[in-house]
Amino acid sequence: MTAPFTDIDSLRRLCLALPDGDDSASGLALARQATLTKPAGSLGRLEELACWLARWQRRPVPRLDRVEILVFAGNHGVTAQRVSPFPAEVTAQMVANFAAGGAAINQLAGVAGAGLRVIEMAGLVPTDDITRADAMSEAGFIAAVATGFAAVAPGLDLLCVGEMGIGNTTTAAALAAALFGGDGATWAGRGTGLDDAGLARKIAAIDSALARHATALHDPLQAARCLGGFELAAILGAVLAARLQHIPVLLDGFVCTAAAAALVRVAPSGLDHGLISHRSAEAGHAALAAAIGQVPLLDLGMRLGEASGAALAVPILRAACACHAGMASFAEAGVSTRA
Amino acid sequence: MTAPFTDIDSLRRLCLALPDGDDSASGLALARQATLTKPAGSLGRLEELACWLARWQRRPVPRLDRVEILVFAGNHGVTAQRVSPFPAEVTAQMVANFAAGGAAINQLAGVAGAGLRVIEMAGLVPTDDITRADAMSEAGFIAAVATGFAAVAPGLDLLCVGEMGIGNTTTAAALAAALFGGDGATWAGRGTGLDDAGLARKIAAIDSALARHATALHDPLQAARCLGGFELAAILGAVLAARLQHIPVLLDGFVCTAAAAALVRVAPSGLDHGLISHRSAEAGHAALAAAIGQVPLLDLGMRLGEASGAALAVPILRAACACHAGMASFAEAGVSTRA
Repeated sequence: MTAPFTDIDSLRRLCLALPDGDDSASGLALARQATLTKPAGSLGRLEELACWLARWQRRPVPRLDRVEILVFAGNHGVTAQRVSPFPAEVTAQMVANFAAGGAAINQLAGVAGAGLRVIEMAGLVPTDDITRADAMSEAGFIAAVATGFAAVAPGLDLLCVGEMGIGNTTTAAALAAALFGGDGATWAGRGTGLDDAGLARKIAAIDSALARHATALHDPLQAARCLGGFELAAILGAVLAARLQHIPVLLDGFVCTAAAAALVRVAPSGLDHGLISHRSAEAGHAALAAAIGQVPLLDLGMRLGEASGAALAVPILRAACACHAGMASFAEAGVSTRA
Repeated sequence: MTAPFTDIDSLRRLCLALPDGDDSASGLALARQATLTKPAGSLGRLEELACWLARWQRRPVPRLDRVEILVFAGNHGVTAQRVSPFPAEVTAQMVANFAAGGAAINQLAGVAGAGLRVIEMAGLVPTDDITRADAMSEAGFIAAVATGFAAVAPGLDLLCVGEMGIGNTTTAAALAAALFGGDGATWAGRGTGLDDAGLARKIAAIDSALARHATALHDPLQAARCLGGFELAAILGAVLAARLQHIPVLLDGFVCTAAAAALVRVAPSGLDHGLISHRSAEAGHAALAAAIGQVPLLDLGMRLGEASGAALAVPILRAACACHAGMASFAEAGVSTRA
């Protein structure tokens, strides 16, 4: 789908006019749940997930025939501040590893029964260092959002989004601070495994970036441009495209949530079609999930990125759909209801 | 496998002489994890699960080719105390629903890629009412444990266990109290959906049973005989057989955990090969998991039984195995390690 925006103003107008879910479909799904052979509510979140998928797929019996995982990869000028223990070359090396099938996400996509596409943003040329300049020009930011927007294939039943980018927990933490308040110490975590000195540098870099860009940060989309990254912008675009195409979304961890959270700050319901798949072990993620009012589905101490948590949650959604579509009703099975 | 016990004394001796896991296999698995293309520890519990499966399967690269779900169904005399909102006939009706493929577990087994067998205990004849008598004679208890023991097929890579039995959250709560202290109010929950008056009756029934059998309850296996049920005894037997055959086990929710917990009270390491798959919404389950020192894998507000939580966790274990076996090492992929 070609992006129906050409600058931040038209992007903002689009974010303020998003289609809602289908209350009729989710209402029918809820009514169906009440007839199935189980005590009411006993499948817990599986029941809610079936209704949530129904609402955003606009069908009372949702399906997951076509699931795709998009991983956006980008580089970050802020790595000059030594905010990661891994060198920036690792971004390209991991993209090659994705292509060769050797990364975690390749294995997890297989278990999820999902397609996987990896998209290199801006030829992996880094953004500018956010402690010294805007991460992206407006044209660069809009192009990245449009790349993510165009990457969403029509007709998907579920989209999973994730990222790879050395340094991007720093940009995500800066963006989270801009969107929800707080500072470097509030949102910075150890990323791929920073020591104490590295964490102190990361916090200082975030605080420096927040101070530099202070006048722009009241606008969530300007914050995403000044503090974010190409892959974060692409995630925003992909999540937006999914909304327009009635495709529910599984978000991955900290970076992915921060990237998509700008939508919530433009319009409160902007991320209602997106579910945080897991609570990352990255320090700021629990607070970020709470800030957008979500309880992540899984909590397994993961902090890898690559859409790994989103892929891992796909079988949970498959289970919700299978129960919803396949269970017998009390009447069909001849099972007695409550005495 | 024929049961190598004929009474409670010989069963106890068996429980006190269980084989340990293979430290060599889990050590090799841990070493392998350190070479894979991800920051150390970033797959969180998936890494631990791979090593746990390696330890109990006794192979450095565990596999999940043969996964089976066993659901044991039984009836309970304590339903005479009106401790469930559903009539006892529902146990047999749900067994028929399992056979017809209409229950939640049928759908979840499909998603898990697991075989499913349902075993009717004692022809669904109820135990005696625990407020008035021992639930089972010693012969009846041992026969039920042996049925569960014999049900475990040789050569499985993973066993999932669960249950169906109207009234069995009452017996499970009584057993939990006997094993870990506390009373009816400590352990009773609303089961399939009790109202306040029903919950009060349930608590009273548990307290009455605990008082009646007080002199026997210092022995975990006698507690399981006096307060438990045929399907709970079978779960104990199946978990025991799995240990002897080096098969790791996924436990389901509250009833299943209480049934298996007797093993921990006979020998502290008796359940090290068994993992609680999910935190049930049934009131006592979080405390029961804590009492045996486990953090359940999933927490999705489910309280259905039928091995539904165990089946739902199978794809998480498949993901752990897939990453462990399929990921490239840093050297293989040419990815730089930490700077």
